[in-house]
Amino acid sequence: MSQQAESSAGTGSSTGRRYRFAARMAKTPKSFIREILKVTEDPRIISFAGGLPNPELIDVEGIARATRAVLAEDGRVALQYSTTEGYRPLREYIAARYKKRLGLDISPDEILITNGSQQCLDLIGKVLIDKGDHVAIERPGYLGAIQAFSLYEPQFHAVLLHEDGPDPVQLAHELKTNTIRLFYGVPNSQNPSGVTYSEERRKEIATVLAPYDTLFVEDDAYGELNFEGISSSSMRKYLPDRTIITGSFSKILAPGMRMGWVVAPPAIMEQLVVAKQASDLHSNYLSQRIAYEYLSHEDIDAKIAVIRAKYRAHGNLMAGLVKELMPASVTCTVPRGGMFVWVTLPDGISSMDVFEQALKEQVAVLPGSPFYTDGGGTNTLRLNFSNSTPEKIRTGMERLAKVIRNLEQH
Amino acid sequence: MSQQAESSAGTGSSTGRRYRFAARMAKTPKSFIREILKVTEDPRIISFAGGLPNPELIDVEGIARATRAVLAEDGRVALQYSTTEGYRPLREYIAARYKKRLGLDISPDEILITNGSQQCLDLIGKVLIDKGDHVAIERPGYLGAIQAFSLYEPQFHAVLLHEDGPDPVQLAHELKTNTIRLFYGVPNSQNPSGVTYSEERRKEIATVLAPYDTLFVEDDAYGELNFEGISSSSMRKYLPDRTIITGSFSKILAPGMRMGWVVAPPAIMEQLVVAKQASDLHSNYLSQRIAYEYLSHEDIDAKIAVIRAKYRAHGNLMAGLVKELMPASVTCTVPRGGMFVWVTLPDGISSMDVFEQALKEQVAVLPGSPFYTDGGGTNTLRLNFSNSTPEKIRTGMERLAKVIRNLEQH
Repeated sequence: MSQQAESSAGTGSSTGRRYRFAARMAKTPKSFIREILKVTEDPRIISFAGGLPNPELIDVEGIARATRAVLAEDGRVALQYSTTEGYRPLREYIAARYKKRLGLDISPDEILITNGSQQCLDLIGKVLIDKGDHVAIERPGYLGAIQAFSLYEPQFHAVLLHEDGPDPVQLAHELKTNTIRLFYGVPNSQNPSGVTYSEERRKEIATVLAPYDTLFVEDDAYGELNFEGISSSSMRKYLPDRTIITGSFSKILAPGMRMGWVVAPPAIMEQLVVAKQASDLHSNYLSQRIAYEYLSHEDIDAKIAVIRAKYRAHGNLMAGLVKELMPASVTCTVPRGGMFVWVTLPDGISSMDVFEQALKEQVAVLPGSPFYTDGGGTNTLRLNFSNSTPEKIRTGMERLAKVIRNLEQH
Repeated sequence: MSQQAESSAGTGSSTGRRYRFAARMAKTPKSFIREILKVTEDPRIISFAGGLPNPELIDVEGIARATRAVLAEDGRVALQYSTTEGYRPLREYIAARYKKRLGLDISPDEILITNGSQQCLDLIGKVLIDKGDHVAIERPGYLGAIQAFSLYEPQFHAVLLHEDGPDPVQLAHELKTNTIRLFYGVPNSQNPSGVTYSEERRKEIATVLAPYDTLFVEDDAYGELNFEGISSSSMRKYLPDRTIITGSFSKILAPGMRMGWVVAPPAIMEQLVVAKQASDLHSNYLSQRIAYEYLSHEDIDAKIAVIRAKYRAHGNLMAGLVKELMPASVTCTVPRGGMFVWVTLPDGISSMDVFEQALKEQVAVLPGSPFYTDGGGTNTLRLNFSNSTPEKIRTGMERLAKVIRNLEQH
């Protein structure tokens, strides 16, 4: 085992004792985001570092109403143990919504309710990744997936993400060179880059994958947050028996309820259910009941339209301010959905330096390097615009522009 | 990879495609309990097969009141993302309760809130077990732990569980023969056997473990359910820097909220938090807030006293009926807490035969063999008494006695 996985306790009764941890722990990056969020708890700091939905858009009243109904009508059942797969009417609702939004035929039996979509990644890792297996991921790729999969000790292959999706030539090369078990991607409003795959690129990726057994893991946390309300095709349309979709209510309902789901073909679902049962028996049943009660009585599409409009305004404002305030050498993605703007600094400027200097100006940003499994990205930044106000976005971007201009002059 | 881990999908778009699963999946027993519970959904069947708390004892009104308060006073925060460790006032409450109940000095920093105590077992496996590591467990041992740990591919060593605790001589032998990473036990009202370790045996086990680096994982899901209200010492008293405790609100508050916790020395906790974050970011925050609101306003000790009294009456009734109705060759544990009676049949009778015959008489029982990691236990049964009524217990036990008498005559 590696040195990194050993530890000696610092305090109290543990003084001096050294513990031996599983080798996988040494391979799991500690979340830099997590460390940053501790720094940014100070309310005076304008934070673009996190990835929180806007709390003003959480329908507390509606959720309170749904909760009252569930507890009044079926409290004893809603508070008891339940099935591993999850509340069937909620799974039926999710299936029907896929049909309506994307024209996909998905059986409720192909849906498992999870503790947010992060848990899907853990379950997928458990079921599909042996130590040393090859896993492809976008470059940059979602940090939460890198962390979740790392515990199953794969070898990552990072496939360059262009403005219209992953590089098909590089993907073809990776597939030819190694047995890639799965390709993990976020086709809609990717975290961290904000990129949405074009329809053309989706088809191309499917064509490249077709001759292999590689699964496509489609993380769709942001699919409902396309600013124009455009629903791009799921990869399941092109690779029906090889696509696993992960979904989330965190961005459209409430993250604190930790409600997500995974869609998988029946034979994979069977294994996911075994893994879920061993992991925590089943997801919070009270919250499943509340979510279903809410969704079957409220106009969720109207709520989502409000979220989209607000995030669009914030995203356009932030991307516009990069152009308006920053040196011309600084570029950024113009988001068409989601919660992030991805900034690329000129080569000479380190995003860690920007992070440190910006913090002195009471602005928190997220350096992009943790999103790279193979190093690099040291001149990139992820900026969150959902959990802010237009005023804070303007003030924060002014301070950030000052920091970058200063660094550019040195 | 083994044959067992492969699968061909049965239906729909998956027809014919074969998937390759991680090797660990072939090592994880599918829950027989899960399969049985499907059979016993028929309301005409009297079920002693499950392990559910009595739904009449769930305080729906109190939980509804706590929920109203949380959503009215702090809804936007309670529904937002939160910290991986969990709501600090809840962790402080748990720490204070350990002090009051057991005299243990535990810092809130040593407590992590999980999705029920089952998730503790997954996190412990992730952080501590490498493939091939040696893990000791009671014989019979808790099936949920066998499942959770199996995903991390250990070698199990089953240590015979006597009426006063695990066999210290066998444990000493196992420790001498192999590097045992951890010993998992349920010292209070064990599932499945109902056994509670004597104080003497706790000390003895600690003495046997003392010269080694082996951790003691103390699953204490039933510690509050001792029928006489006796609080036995935690193993943390004897092995302060080597005991991990798992706890649960499922048996005293409501299982549907999936609220559990793990207590570990700081250096181990640090790794558990990394694993928890990669697994699902954090536990349901709304439920954490509800649980804390409830616990800080309601008299939980009075509620627990009611649960204890009911379970004591049920447990004594069931154990008495074994003596009254069954052949003298049938023996059982007389539970002093928890939710189960453990029945041993005469050698010639198979509990699978009893299971099948009893089902024809509309009674469901749980054969004991899944609780044995090394085979055996084929003449044992676990009977649940918590989720029943005295009338059903009497009727069910009469039918079960008839089945066993019939099988004895053949």
